[in-house]
Amino acid sequence: MSQNEFSEGDLRNTGMALKHDREWDYELDRIVEAVHDRDAKKVGLQFPEGLKRRGPKVTDDLRELLPEDVTVMMSGQPCYGACDLDTYMMRRTDVFVHFGHSPMKESEKIIYVPLFSNVEVLPIIEESLEEIEGEEVGLVTTAQHMNRFEEMREFLEERGYEVHTRKGDDRLTHEGQVLGCNYASADIDADNVLYVGGGKFHPLGLAMEHPEKNVVIADPVNNVVTVADTEKFMKQRYGAVHRAMDAEKWGVIFCTKIGQGRWDQAEEIVDNNENAYLITMDEVTPDRLRNFDMDAFVNTGCPRITTDDGPQFHKPMLTPGEYEIAVGNKPLDALEFDTFHGTW
Amino acid sequence: MSQNEFSEGDLRNTGMALKHDREWDYELDRIVEAVHDRDAKKVGLQFPEGLKRRGPKVTDDLRELLPEDVTVMMSGQPCYGACDLDTYMMRRTDVFVHFGHSPMKESEKIIYVPLFSNVEVLPIIEESLEEIEGEEVGLVTTAQHMNRFEEMREFLEERGYEVHTRKGDDRLTHEGQVLGCNYASADIDADNVLYVGGGKFHPLGLAMEHPEKNVVIADPVNNVVTVADTEKFMKQRYGAVHRAMDAEKWGVIFCTKIGQGRWDQAEEIVDNNENAYLITMDEVTPDRLRNFDMDAFVNTGCPRITTDDGPQFHKPMLTPGEYEIAVGNKPLDALEFDTFHGTW
Repeated sequence: MSQNEFSEGDLRNTGMALKHDREWDYELDRIVEAVHDRDAKKVGLQFPEGLKRRGPKVTDDLRELLPEDVTVMMSGQPCYGACDLDTYMMRRTDVFVHFGHSPMKESEKIIYVPLFSNVEVLPIIEESLEEIEGEEVGLVTTAQHMNRFEEMREFLEERGYEVHTRKGDDRLTHEGQVLGCNYASADIDADNVLYVGGGKFHPLGLAMEHPEKNVVIADPVNNVVTVADTEKFMKQRYGAVHRAMDAEKWGVIFCTKIGQGRWDQAEEIVDNNENAYLITMDEVTPDRLRNFDMDAFVNTGCPRITTDDGPQFHKPMLTPGEYEIAVGNKPLDALEFDTFHGTW
Repeated sequence: MSQNEFSEGDLRNTGMALKHDREWDYELDRIVEAVHDRDAKKVGLQFPEGLKRRGPKVTDDLRELLPEDVTVMMSGQPCYGACDLDTYMMRRTDVFVHFGHSPMKESEKIIYVPLFSNVEVLPIIEESLEEIEGEEVGLVTTAQHMNRFEEMREFLEERGYEVHTRKGDDRLTHEGQVLGCNYASADIDADNVLYVGGGKFHPLGLAMEHPEKNVVIADPVNNVVTVADTEKFMKQRYGAVHRAMDAEKWGVIFCTKIGQGRWDQAEEIVDNNENAYLITMDEVTPDRLRNFDMDAFVNTGCPRITTDDGPQFHKPMLTPGEYEIAVGNKPLDALEFDTFHGTW
């Protein structure tokens, strides 16, 4: 397939075109088996935001397969990753299924069902090659394209590239996998990193974490190749840090989501700043923080809330590293992307 | 004080005028004592929305009084009542303090600190007398005016009224107390009920729950006397029921907040309607429900989310009783206000 057949906005055979008719494999057999094995009476299902619409159909299919006395329920909590398990539901159901994210930590309490995109990835990778400088390239992708990872690697190797991949750290399940908060898999010995996946959320984080690398985005969902440009993001970060330099009262957010808690960091800040106040919460939203009379916030939870949603908050919202700069403990050029390691 | 001295909008000596300078009694001694008794290292504070601004100052005052190694934290979770305890914080702190609501259920885990308004209530009660028909009147108020309840009663009795009061049920701490979801204290043998308190949130619920009574509102905060009129509310309720009559797919919400769970009701609906799907969540918001592909919702959690926020949801949102009407199990004239009994 020549690269001329695709251009930005042409959605034939891309994720957008397939969105409505693609069939995911929800691995219902595995769920049914667990229900029988455990003689379960309550089954809880948790979907990421974009897949919640599918919940009722999956529930229907499960009800067909399960005994009448089994209650199936869906989590209505927001869900943005495997860091974001509905622990209330997990504790109160006999079988708890988390769809669409790869395990951050295995547990007998949780059935993780990955949901893989069926979008073709090779055409857009072909197109992306002209943005790769030299012969060595790191390769990363997200959970939903993981099933194509070896195919991607072989494709690149056949075209003569030396492909660098890495598993990253404990927070990541698969070799080559990235999360919005963790790019350890891109910590490889190559100046280029090819990111294959939809949207700019992940590659922008990747480029901020690895500013020295050429981050090429092959986006098979929107059918477009770009090179990550963090300039706008970095300006926002420096802007937030500068605005926070005059802050007296700091709200220090400890996030109570199972995979987003960095207690030691939060406690250390509060212990060392008598004008810092510890605030605990699960969803970190502008509405919730508006009620507190603070001059600035430092968020020890999800770094993407800080960097991506930051401008929506009424006061500057910094990462822990940015906080150190704002209060004068570190120089301005110490600014770097806040990544999240470990599990829980 | 003659009634001419106050008119609507005149905020002298009312709650609005006192808002910024009034001093609450946060009962810090009681909290400090609990910390010492339990050799506590972590103290959690939960404030209702309107008092979260005071959190940092209360934290400062506590830090002055407590040993250095004690960490004080504030809950950033929304909080709308004693039904709405931050159970995450409760489980993970040695001393957990809930401010501003009277106990729904006593527990050694929880220190409840009531916060009483210092607004004068008698002048506006005096003014309200002309709306009371006859010599018998029920008297109700909210937690923050409870400290004046006997004063209110005596005032009415001195003016010749027979004052009817009642404790209500287990969900209520005090005689004469109402909650947004429970008006059992107004279940008295009088055609008039005098509600003393700020705003229309409580008396509108009261009037919907007791449509046969003349509900007089003496609002000392906004300095105004009115008679509760539920017409607009009731039209909205009938409208929502009518719009839901064509619904095929129903989302049945089970609220996971400690004092808002009605599991049996939720399960019964789902068991008897194959097009009903159980959704569990803590905060019930339009954003969270928009992701589910449903035609209508029935909310077994807080009835005030249903009645007061209902119009903000993208699909009709009904109480369990309204659901029974919409699906044809009950006649339209069975519509009544959804109250919440019991604790947890």
